[in-house]
Amino acid sequence: MPKGIPSATVSRLVIYLRVLTDLESEGVSRASSDHLAAEANVSAFQVRKDLAYFGSFGTRGSGYTVATLKNELRRILGLTRPWRVIIVGMGRLGQALAAYPQLDQYDFKLVAGVDVDASKVGSLIGDLPVHHLDDLHELVAEQTVDIAFLAVPVDAAQAATDALVRAGVPGILNFVPTVVTVPAHVTVESVDFLAGLKRLAYFLQVAPHDGEREAAAG
Amino acid sequence: MPKGIPSATVSRLVIYLRVLTDLESEGVSRASSDHLAAEANVSAFQVRKDLAYFGSFGTRGSGYTVATLKNELRRILGLTRPWRVIIVGMGRLGQALAAYPQLDQYDFKLVAGVDVDASKVGSLIGDLPVHHLDDLHELVAEQTVDIAFLAVPVDAAQAATDALVRAGVPGILNFVPTVVTVPAHVTVESVDFLAGLKRLAYFLQVAPHDGEREAAAG
Repeated sequence: MPKGIPSATVSRLVIYLRVLTDLESEGVSRASSDHLAAEANVSAFQVRKDLAYFGSFGTRGSGYTVATLKNELRRILGLTRPWRVIIVGMGRLGQALAAYPQLDQYDFKLVAGVDVDASKVGSLIGDLPVHHLDDLHELVAEQTVDIAFLAVPVDAAQAATDALVRAGVPGILNFVPTVVTVPAHVTVESVDFLAGLKRLAYFLQVAPHDGEREAAAG
Repeated sequence: MPKGIPSATVSRLVIYLRVLTDLESEGVSRASSDHLAAEANVSAFQVRKDLAYFGSFGTRGSGYTVATLKNELRRILGLTRPWRVIIVGMGRLGQALAAYPQLDQYDFKLVAGVDVDASKVGSLIGDLPVHHLDDLHELVAEQTVDIAFLAVPVDAAQAATDALVRAGVPGILNFVPTVVTVPAHVTVESVDFLAGLKRLAYFLQVAPHDGEREAAAG
């Protein structure tokens, strides 16, 4: 696997994979870089450049085989192996994540929840046994945890992150709207739903005004 | 406001705004397009091209004034006006969203929740009065709702979306991991936390193996 791939390329690979999955479900078997580019809102040159980091996938003039490229991207993105996940913070957000469908679509396996609330620790929430944060080290070692979903209150985010780092969890998906800092050997990705909300505000602002909107709807 | 701006440009404007907000909080008052580009993981040419859609913001040789460009981006993205928001689906996810901090940072104002569960309708969840989905039309008209957060079960997503469209809600932020279809005058943005999770899987896959990781941690 090549190193030093730009982060923006990785984001686009995720988008290409989604586009290819949609195309396959629509029964499309071949796609050109123009086609992928249009669906992903980038240039065809960008598509070819992003894919070229990982080898040669297309055939000049006839484009890509959708199923093959999809499977290559799944492999490149690390989605063909299982990942063991804990949820840290079993409040409303943690519980919503525990019930989130489609996690198992890519072999993300939820193994436990973690909280500090005595009324939750030792119980099952959904199918997940809830452990105390103080027992994180044993949990991570026994369950060989790869990824933690961080869903604690803002004030607790950095302390919980530090505990995850000490326990040896290599990856954190941060749902808390704050920046957490980790040493270089730990990877954090943040889920920022405010980004989607800001995009939405932009598109609503440039959309027709209310009168036009009602006319369009009527 | 110019129309026909590429969707990918809008996504990058959101990233530039976050970078500028961080820079301002760090006391940085001026930034070059190279600096913005490095922080946003794109080329400096891309930064200049994206901003050029909206006018001329920088000075050749001395870059951008952070506070000014930040405020311009807030205005361009529609974040200087209030937006009235309802949450459709007051289960665990809806309740987590109702409690999400920082929504008011940009004048997103939660005005109500919507559900079909008789035990919730008519009650307050947090500060939000919960209305029945059947009363959506009156709610949207009385509260002049701009945006709905869609947080219903997958099976209910399209029917709830159709109800929002009929009631005249112009914008939907979709938290449900399924595609919903709307007429052209309605805008949908989807929050896909699996995208962040796939990026994380990629970076973990290319990271040092366990032995190296423990050496690095130790």
